[in-house]
Amino acid sequence: MGPFAHLILLIFSILAPLISSMPAFFPGAAYQSLAKQHKASKPKIPYRAHYFPQILDHFTFQQSSSKIFYQKYLINNRYWQKGGPIFVYTGNEGDIEWFAANTGFLLDIAPKFRALLVFIEHRYYGESMPFGKDSYKSTETLGYLNSQQALADYAVLIRNLKQNLSSETSPVVVFGGSYGGMLAAWFRLKYPHIAIGALASSAPILQFDDITPWSSFYDAVSQDFKEASLNCFEVIRGSWEELLALATQKEGLTELSRTFRTCKDLHSVDAVWAWLWSAFVYTAMVNYPFEANFMMPLPAYPVKQMCKIVDEFPPGASKISRVFAAASLYYNYSRSSKCFQLEHGPDAHGLHGWGWQACTEMVMPMTCSERSMFPTSTYDYKEFADRCLKTYGIMPRPHWITTEFGGKVRFLLHFHLSSYASLVEVLSCVQRIDQVLKRSSGNIIFSNGMQDPWSRGSVLKNISSSIIALVTQKGAHHVDFRAATKDDPDWLIEQRRQEVEIIHKWINEYDADLKQRPKDAES
Amino acid sequence: MGPFAHLILLIFSILAPLISSMPAFFPGAAYQSLAKQHKASKPKIPYRAHYFPQILDHFTFQQSSSKIFYQKYLINNRYWQKGGPIFVYTGNEGDIEWFAANTGFLLDIAPKFRALLVFIEHRYYGESMPFGKDSYKSTETLGYLNSQQALADYAVLIRNLKQNLSSETSPVVVFGGSYGGMLAAWFRLKYPHIAIGALASSAPILQFDDITPWSSFYDAVSQDFKEASLNCFEVIRGSWEELLALATQKEGLTELSRTFRTCKDLHSVDAVWAWLWSAFVYTAMVNYPFEANFMMPLPAYPVKQMCKIVDEFPPGASKISRVFAAASLYYNYSRSSKCFQLEHGPDAHGLHGWGWQACTEMVMPMTCSERSMFPTSTYDYKEFADRCLKTYGIMPRPHWITTEFGGKVRFLLHFHLSSYASLVEVLSCVQRIDQVLKRSSGNIIFSNGMQDPWSRGSVLKNISSSIIALVTQKGAHHVDFRAATKDDPDWLIEQRRQEVEIIHKWINEYDADLKQRPKDAES
Repeated sequence: MGPFAHLILLIFSILAPLISSMPAFFPGAAYQSLAKQHKASKPKIPYRAHYFPQILDHFTFQQSSSKIFYQKYLINNRYWQKGGPIFVYTGNEGDIEWFAANTGFLLDIAPKFRALLVFIEHRYYGESMPFGKDSYKSTETLGYLNSQQALADYAVLIRNLKQNLSSETSPVVVFGGSYGGMLAAWFRLKYPHIAIGALASSAPILQFDDITPWSSFYDAVSQDFKEASLNCFEVIRGSWEELLALATQKEGLTELSRTFRTCKDLHSVDAVWAWLWSAFVYTAMVNYPFEANFMMPLPAYPVKQMCKIVDEFPPGASKISRVFAAASLYYNYSRSSKCFQLEHGPDAHGLHGWGWQACTEMVMPMTCSERSMFPTSTYDYKEFADRCLKTYGIMPRPHWITTEFGGKVRFLLHFHLSSYASLVEVLSCVQRIDQVLKRSSGNIIFSNGMQDPWSRGSVLKNISSSIIALVTQKGAHHVDFRAATKDDPDWLIEQRRQEVEIIHKWINEYDADLKQRPKDAES
Repeated sequence: MGPFAHLILLIFSILAPLISSMPAFFPGAAYQSLAKQHKASKPKIPYRAHYFPQILDHFTFQQSSSKIFYQKYLINNRYWQKGGPIFVYTGNEGDIEWFAANTGFLLDIAPKFRALLVFIEHRYYGESMPFGKDSYKSTETLGYLNSQQALADYAVLIRNLKQNLSSETSPVVVFGGSYGGMLAAWFRLKYPHIAIGALASSAPILQFDDITPWSSFYDAVSQDFKEASLNCFEVIRGSWEELLALATQKEGLTELSRTFRTCKDLHSVDAVWAWLWSAFVYTAMVNYPFEANFMMPLPAYPVKQMCKIVDEFPPGASKISRVFAAASLYYNYSRSSKCFQLEHGPDAHGLHGWGWQACTEMVMPMTCSERSMFPTSTYDYKEFADRCLKTYGIMPRPHWITTEFGGKVRFLLHFHLSSYASLVEVLSCVQRIDQVLKRSSGNIIFSNGMQDPWSRGSVLKNISSSIIALVTQKGAHHVDFRAATKDDPDWLIEQRRQEVEIIHKWINEYDADLKQRPKDAES
């Protein structure tokens, strides 16, 4: 969920070294327009919105700590039986209604558990803006946007909610997808006294430092296309150069504008690259086995459909025309667009929430290897940090997430002090997170589908008897969280069945502990 | 360790409701003079001081987040063999050298483990002042003084240190006493990827909200005296009224000044109460089986010695003369004082670190019941919060610690919002911390001696096979952390032996995990 926002950084971090004329730091305009589109078509969801007066700064006691903001959360109590479990979705980088609409799984299972459903919006997204319209205005207003503050929000809100409902003993299970899944897993790690377990779907908690090979994300995207069709993979791989070659010709941009049916004439090839790039990456992520409308409306198995389009062109057709047609599946499956907006006005390049998070703590280095269908690229931390400083007035803390949440990494010496000109790479000292989880935590499901490139940065093997990896070969980005459909394949039905079974086990254990209380109580 | 600072609040919170003329909010002057005295007699310790450039605000990315301060830490590498474990003392509310000098246990066991010893000073104490002399100047400068920031300091420093020492795989065990023990236990809970285990000595992690009965602390102090001598207990219990009666008589304060050998004439009886109160509480805490100089130089079994003094007076002697003589054991065992400084000048009542912490997150409600030898008193949250607001310009967050670290509690509805005039007590929703620890953590020793009144707020029963409570009936405030002496009783030798054995077990398990790595590596 909200993978788009993730990608904003990806697109930047990969393209930027290649295309020096990249128009803006974070091409978040695309996210904005996506958000607008979603708003327009906002589905009716069976939740009621509430607003919780939340502490702005949990970890510093200043005058600002008395400042509160109103955090939105959604409630569905239709299936709840008092005393039953509370299922909390730990919201990620976007409008909480969007996540609620795309997490039908919770509505599907609520009756079985007689569960209360709660979706909490992440601070600085949707309506949960601490400084209203000025929330993204400056370094100062953005400062409180980070994962630790968000986790503390969830802790305070859940505690308060249970109290208001007089349901202190109801077990809480947290759910999240993508960044929301990272938050769910981390919440279970840091607040085990509040959540008895977590289902973290497509949560790349290992995408930091060098825990996961930096090229794995784009290798995985490419792998999806290669599996669908080797020719398709080769066409896309060859298209970047063809595009560059055409763009440098006289009238090349005019021709590109025509081919890509742009609403306005193109000024450079960069926007074309970014547009294609997004289409391929998102389609790989949402390579679902059924028609869906998560990022965009798409048919079942959209990667296969894209490659079918590429492959069905007559011999001799240009790579450019093929990749345009393929990308059109992503942008125009509903056939409602007459032209495409590839370049965005300067006003659209404002500051964006995920951009800030990526420039502070969510530093996920990525490269494109020769195995990928994208132009090869390296990761230049100095350049990245430079842009963060320029855009947000802040230096990243690239190793903070692994310090705060764990991971086995190499890292950059004295990152917070050294001028980034003199960074020295040395081996770090943090234990492998799998060993840590094994010895000190439990009750987490990491679910992943291997079609999803984010799966490579997640947990793909069982760590202990209660830290379970559920991996499907054909699954995509938190496909398990979508509402059940009549077209669901068996492997998806089975994955969800296992999830329900494991959550039942957690709740039974919790109930057993609760009953045991009188015996071993009062130390 | 640093229990004095804890008591500053206690003295306040108990005396204040009784004595409305209490001269200052936090009688921290006593702490200051104690600190001075310790500085004068600073022992030579086999550690070398270092200063680490630490991030001021780990959880907010603001311009201030680029601000660093220099955090002091001490190293002893005499017994260290590279690859061996690193023992880290998570410093508490005071000069780190004081804690190093009073934690001889680590020096005693270092050779067996070939361990590196590291004592890290807590921010805002000793030399680790983020704003130099202005650190305690205002709400704004004090804002960053809290336990979460301190824990993050330890995480960042330890990670950096291991890296600088090229000892990434060395297991880290954290140690702490009193508040430092709370930090050690919490560090293991929140940063299991950095510390493989924690020895938390006399750590009252359950002294919050209503997890532990509010009267238990003073009941325990009283119990110590009652066990030593019923007469002694009764004399102390009766002395408060006798003092008040005398103080209201003509020339009563003059007589009191003479009896208590005050350096200056007394202005009220309050200071006498506080002076006696401190003497009894501290003596109970450090009721060690050998001569020691932790808070003050004292003989072995000082409670017994105090009661002996009380009991040996001729029949008919006043209670006042008896309690003065008893308290003199605490203040003047070395017989160096000709007079006593019971009242302090107005300049001494400045802001103090523990006062701030107690007014923000370390809210530990306490009362005196009729079982105690102290005047009965209730806990008035409103009055407490009022004073915090007046003194520090800040409202306490009395339920934040249990939200952040766990605990089963009742709490006050909407504490961070409601005017404290309309507080409603309702049942809270946080799981019992013992159940939580059992299911989600491990490798913590809670060691306690029942002579220590703080033991009542700690963990006194095993929670799981690796969360162990080591309880001695005759032990006092982290007596196990003191250097071994020839006078150590068998129970103390046995307690330390068990601690060493358990720590060995943790390290062996860690080593086994490390060796297993190639087998189950690379998910």
